[in-house]
Amino acid sequence: MIKKKLAPKPLMYPKPAVLVGARVMGKPNFNTIANCGIISWDPPMVAVASYFGHYTNRGIRRHKTFSVNIPSAKMAKVTDFCGLYSGRKTDKSKIFKVFYGGLKTAPMIEECPVNLECKLVKTLKYGEAEIFLGEIKAVYAEDKYLTNGQPDTIKIDPLIYSSSDKKYYRIGKPVGKAYEIGRKKKQA
Amino acid sequence: MIKKKLAPKPLMYPKPAVLVGARVMGKPNFNTIANCGIISWDPPMVAVASYFGHYTNRGIRRHKTFSVNIPSAKMAKVTDFCGLYSGRKTDKSKIFKVFYGGLKTAPMIEECPVNLECKLVKTLKYGEAEIFLGEIKAVYAEDKYLTNGQPDTIKIDPLIYSSSDKKYYRIGKPVGKAYEIGRKKKQA
Repeated sequence: MIKKKLAPKPLMYPKPAVLVGARVMGKPNFNTIANCGIISWDPPMVAVASYFGHYTNRGIRRHKTFSVNIPSAKMAKVTDFCGLYSGRKTDKSKIFKVFYGGLKTAPMIEECPVNLECKLVKTLKYGEAEIFLGEIKAVYAEDKYLTNGQPDTIKIDPLIYSSSDKKYYRIGKPVGKAYEIGRKKKQA
Repeated sequence: MIKKKLAPKPLMYPKPAVLVGARVMGKPNFNTIANCGIISWDPPMVAVASYFGHYTNRGIRRHKTFSVNIPSAKMAKVTDFCGLYSGRKTDKSKIFKVFYGGLKTAPMIEECPVNLECKLVKTLKYGEAEIFLGEIKAVYAEDKYLTNGQPDTIKIDPLIYSSSDKKYYRIGKPVGKAYEIGRKKKQA
């Protein structure tokens, strides 16, 4: 087998496409982010990387709160829109129905199946990336997206971002149960 | 609309299911990780969260290198296996064909369509999570997974992890082109 050595790039498969919310200049603003991920489970924490010049970053720095809103695949168009146009020139405060939780300053999107309300814990900087580490203080979801009280992946129908071809994808078919299909007794 | 407020949990949709590799006690070892994500693009960096007691963590601490190996959906069973059994009791060094790159101590999996070779830059700790921030020093892939010299999502057919139902999924159908479907002129 011959593997090619490629230039280092920020690749991950899959990447999410989430809407990160913050209050900037007295208004809610949202930006589309694919470079993020969970980094701790107790306390639950998320890392969100955003170009330091982004308008949303200002609000996160100021209020030390932000939200991570999970759009469904049918929200692809508006999610893409939020990534294309800066809050500096485009008022994105009226696109969605916005609500707030206990942190008061982290605007969340009603239309998104799942919302993570986050308190900024630490900020890192590498190159032009400002990396916000947030503790997830609450999760919000409508009943219709829950199964046994927990958000259900299939009901959410989350949007997936692919950086190789710059396309959005849907989630596909189940492959098997985790902590199960790899058991030794199941091998061979 | 009534949203339910749920207890804070480390949710993200989608999550990847990657195999993180390190050299421990002179042998390659691999663990399955879903809590990870890209946190910087220049330099390209990845954050990988792993329970501090995991065997793989020892190797990352010692050699200050690790790999992130992207399995395809057809590798679900072996990926699950690597997450179920600790390298402390189960020798995982012979499961895959292993190769090394310029960093010398980050074992990578030939069978995985894409490999990220990483140098440890910083380690964070929150609760029981040890978070390794690594700079991606090289990317490896076979020709058959490339399109125009870049890894191709559809050819990779990456494994997706869903923590709500503890299942693995495939990637599904394309929804639209990013930086395109949300353009104002496309809005109705």
